[in-house]
Amino acid sequence: MDEDHDISVSPYMRLALETAREAAADGEVPVGAVLVDAGTGDVIVTAGNRVECDSDPTAHAEMIVIREAANLRKDARLNGCDLYVTLEPCPMCATAISFARIRRVYFGAFDPKGGGVENGPRIFDQPTCHHRPDVYGGIGESDAAALLREFFAARR
Amino acid sequence: MDEDHDISVSPYMRLALETAREAAADGEVPVGAVLVDAGTGDVIVTAGNRVECDSDPTAHAEMIVIREAANLRKDARLNGCDLYVTLEPCPMCATAISFARIRRVYFGAFDPKGGGVENGPRIFDQPTCHHRPDVYGGIGESDAAALLREFFAARR
Repeated sequence: MDEDHDISVSPYMRLALETAREAAADGEVPVGAVLVDAGTGDVIVTAGNRVECDSDPTAHAEMIVIREAANLRKDARLNGCDLYVTLEPCPMCATAISFARIRRVYFGAFDPKGGGVENGPRIFDQPTCHHRPDVYGGIGESDAAALLREFFAARR
Repeated sequence: MDEDHDISVSPYMRLALETAREAAADGEVPVGAVLVDAGTGDVIVTAGNRVECDSDPTAHAEMIVIREAANLRKDARLNGCDLYVTLEPCPMCATAISFARIRRVYFGAFDPKGGGVENGPRIFDQPTCHHRPDVYGGIGESDAAALLREFFAARR
């Protein structure tokens, strides 16, 4: 198996990676997210970062899928939903994930500089965090990290 | 001076409190925010919480004013803007405030259970926080706290 392209990665994470590539093509930091109904396995919504395109500092991929799915369901709580995202969520997104009652978070690359789950403020480990999802980090990490490296290398 | 109604509070915070009262009338947790152009003193946008009305777990007052102001300016960074909010921002909002490069944050009531500035993860004090606004807490606190107490007492 090609170590740089882990074909064992779940189809949801592959979809998130594809969405991240599309974000990069739009000049956005390449992060993609997929929200899945854990009961049916259906993809509810996918999104890439849109901070620059939308002139919105809150438009991270995770925020967009949470907002769109909650709007679709007419419910601010997304019980029974799992999130796949190519990069470790930042503290803003991690807190939103907790508010939305997401069941599981699968993320790709760890983010020592900006992450808020396994790095920085470790939002879900705070005593004031009322809902902690199950977290699985490093899923499809090599592809997700390569995509980010290529993006930032091209901009230097 | 009536200790429960501090008339020395800035007009911006009084506007934020009025917006919080309107949110309560809509059945939302009563928090209001006002974003001000620090150069001109103009109010750019005001908003109350809309989590329930919009079925959006991210629709805190601070997030709404940041998103709307960034959209108005077509710029994801709100340099030279100050935020007035009736409650200490949560970690989600604090991170968004940092991303938006808000200059100063004036907040009303401290929030030991859900705050992310002087409580919980203390977002702006994290080594990975790239922009720390000046923070002034407890401005108009008695009115802001009374509003929240009344709201939650009525729902018990």
